[in-house]
Amino acid sequence: MNIGLVGLGKMGYNLALNLIRNNHSVVAYDCISENVDNICKEGAKGAYTLEEMVRALFHKRVIWLMVPAGKIVDDVIDELVPLIEPGDIIIDGGNSNYKDSIRRYKKLKEKGIEFIDCGTSGGTSGALNGACTMIGGERDSVAYCEEIFKDISVENGYLHVGEPGSGHFTKMVHNGIEYGMMQAIAEGFEVLEKCEFNIDYEKVAKVWNNGSVIRSWLMELTESAFSKDKNLEAIRGVMNSSGEGKWTLETALDLGVPTPVIAMSIMMRYRSLQEDTFSGKVVAALRNEFGGHSVERT
Amino acid sequence: MNIGLVGLGKMGYNLALNLIRNNHSVVAYDCISENVDNICKEGAKGAYTLEEMVRALFHKRVIWLMVPAGKIVDDVIDELVPLIEPGDIIIDGGNSNYKDSIRRYKKLKEKGIEFIDCGTSGGTSGALNGACTMIGGERDSVAYCEEIFKDISVENGYLHVGEPGSGHFTKMVHNGIEYGMMQAIAEGFEVLEKCEFNIDYEKVAKVWNNGSVIRSWLMELTESAFSKDKNLEAIRGVMNSSGEGKWTLETALDLGVPTPVIAMSIMMRYRSLQEDTFSGKVVAALRNEFGGHSVERT
Repeated sequence: MNIGLVGLGKMGYNLALNLIRNNHSVVAYDCISENVDNICKEGAKGAYTLEEMVRALFHKRVIWLMVPAGKIVDDVIDELVPLIEPGDIIIDGGNSNYKDSIRRYKKLKEKGIEFIDCGTSGGTSGALNGACTMIGGERDSVAYCEEIFKDISVENGYLHVGEPGSGHFTKMVHNGIEYGMMQAIAEGFEVLEKCEFNIDYEKVAKVWNNGSVIRSWLMELTESAFSKDKNLEAIRGVMNSSGEGKWTLETALDLGVPTPVIAMSIMMRYRSLQEDTFSGKVVAALRNEFGGHSVERT
Repeated sequence: MNIGLVGLGKMGYNLALNLIRNNHSVVAYDCISENVDNICKEGAKGAYTLEEMVRALFHKRVIWLMVPAGKIVDDVIDELVPLIEPGDIIIDGGNSNYKDSIRRYKKLKEKGIEFIDCGTSGGTSGALNGACTMIGGERDSVAYCEEIFKDISVENGYLHVGEPGSGHFTKMVHNGIEYGMMQAIAEGFEVLEKCEFNIDYEKVAKVWNNGSVIRSWLMELTESAFSKDKNLEAIRGVMNSSGEGKWTLETALDLGVPTPVIAMSIMMRYRSLQEDTFSGKVVAALRNEFGGHSVERT
C-alpha cells in the first residue's frame, strides 16, 4: 500500500523499515532532512515538506503520524488538512492522549477526513520487527488500512478495539500496567540488592525467565540490562515518564477506580526526579518539634 | 535417581509425575492414602508411612518435601530425623519462609543431615511439565542433586542461588514481584471495565500478549481466564494469599527498602477479604462530624 509517514524518530524510522520490508510503498517526511536522506537509502521515497509528501501519495491517501504526543500532532494535522481531501485517512500511531484523539477524530470528520488512533507497543524493536497495535476508529477506515496493521504487527498482534479513541485508550492502560509491573520488578531487585545473600541479579532474572510465574518480556529486558552492567553502576535511578501512566491514573480518578499500584509507581517516578523533598523536610521538622529528634542540616 | 517424596498435593503429585517421566525412581508418601494409591498407578513406589518410605530408599537418601509451609515442615523433619542417617539430604521444595529454612539447615547440620531449600515456581503446570527452581544450600549437596533440579525444571530453569536460605529467599521475592504484577494487571483491567468504551477483555489480553511490552505468562493466564468467563461474572474478587508477599514486605521493612507497590498489592488483597471496613466507618464518621456529610446506616 502507498503510505505517507510523518516522523522519522526512533519509532518512525523503524516503522518505515518495517513497512518497506513488507513491500509497502513509503513516502517519508521528517523535519530533520538527514533522517529523510537516510530512509531514502533504505528504499523509501523521501519528502522534504509535507506538501511534497502529499503530492507523492495516491488516492485514497493514508498518512501515518509518528510524532511526539501533544501540540505537534495538532500542528501536523492543521498543516495537512488543506493539502488532503475528503476520504483520506490520517492514522496517529503515537502516544496521544485518547481524549485528544476523540477531539481530532470529530474535527476531521467535519471535513470528511477519516481518523484512526493506533497505540503502538513493543518499543523500537517492535516497531522494526513486529509491534503490538491497538486501533480505534470507524469500521470502514480501519478495514481499509487492515493490511498495514497486520503487516507491521506480530502475528495476532493487532486489534481493532472499537470506536475512535479506544486504540489510544487501550495503549494508555497498557502503559499504566507497564508502570506497575516495572516498579514491582524493580522493588523485588532492590530487596535482593539489600539482602544478606550475595545475589547474581542477571542469573536470577534469567532463571525467572525460564518457567517462573513472572516470566515476561520486561524480565527479559531486566536480564539483558544486568548482562551489560552487573550492578547497574553506570546509571542513576532517575525514572522519567512520558504521560501515559499519569493519564491512566487521571482516568482512574475520574472513573472512581482504585488503582493504588499504578498510582504508587507514578509517585515513585516523580520521587526519583527529586534530589531532596520538601515533604521530607516537613516530616523531619515535625519529628524535631514534638520529640527533639535530630535533623540533618543543609 | 532414587528419591523420596513427601506430600502429594496439587504440586507434589504433579512433581511426582514429572520425576517419573524423567526416569527417576520415586518413593512417594502422603498422609492421604488415596493419593498414594493413585501415584502408584503412575509408576511410583508407594509408602503409607514415612518409615516405609525411608526403608525403600537407597543411600545416600534424598527426600523431597512438598508440604504446606510452617509447622508441618518441622513436624515431618522431626519425624524423619530418627529414621535417616548423616549424609542424607532433605530438600524442602515448598514455600517455606527463608528464615525457617536457615534454622532448619543449621539444626540438621548438627546431625550431619544435609538440607537444601528449593523455591519452586510455575504453578501446578510447571510442577508437571517443567518448573523454575531457585536453590539454596551447600555446594556439594546441591551438586549431588543437580540432576533432579535439571530434570524437573525447564531449560535454564534452575539456579543454585547461593548459601542455605537463598533459594526460598529468592522465591519469596519472586512472589512479591508476582503480587505487584498481578495487581497492576488487575487495576488496568478495572479501568477498561469502567471506561466509556465497550472493551472485549479477552481480545485485549490476547493482543497484549503478542508484541506488547507487557506480554507475560501472567497476561497469558489473564487471556485464558477471560476466554472461560468473558466478564469474570462467576467469581468474586476475593484475593487470598499464602504468605510470601507478606514476608517480602516484612523483609523490605527490616532492610529499609521502599516497596510501595508490593505493599499496596498486599493491602489490596487484605481489603478484598473485608465486606466492610472499620477504617471506612471512621472516615465516614469524621466527614459527618466536621461537615455534616451523610453516612450510610447499617
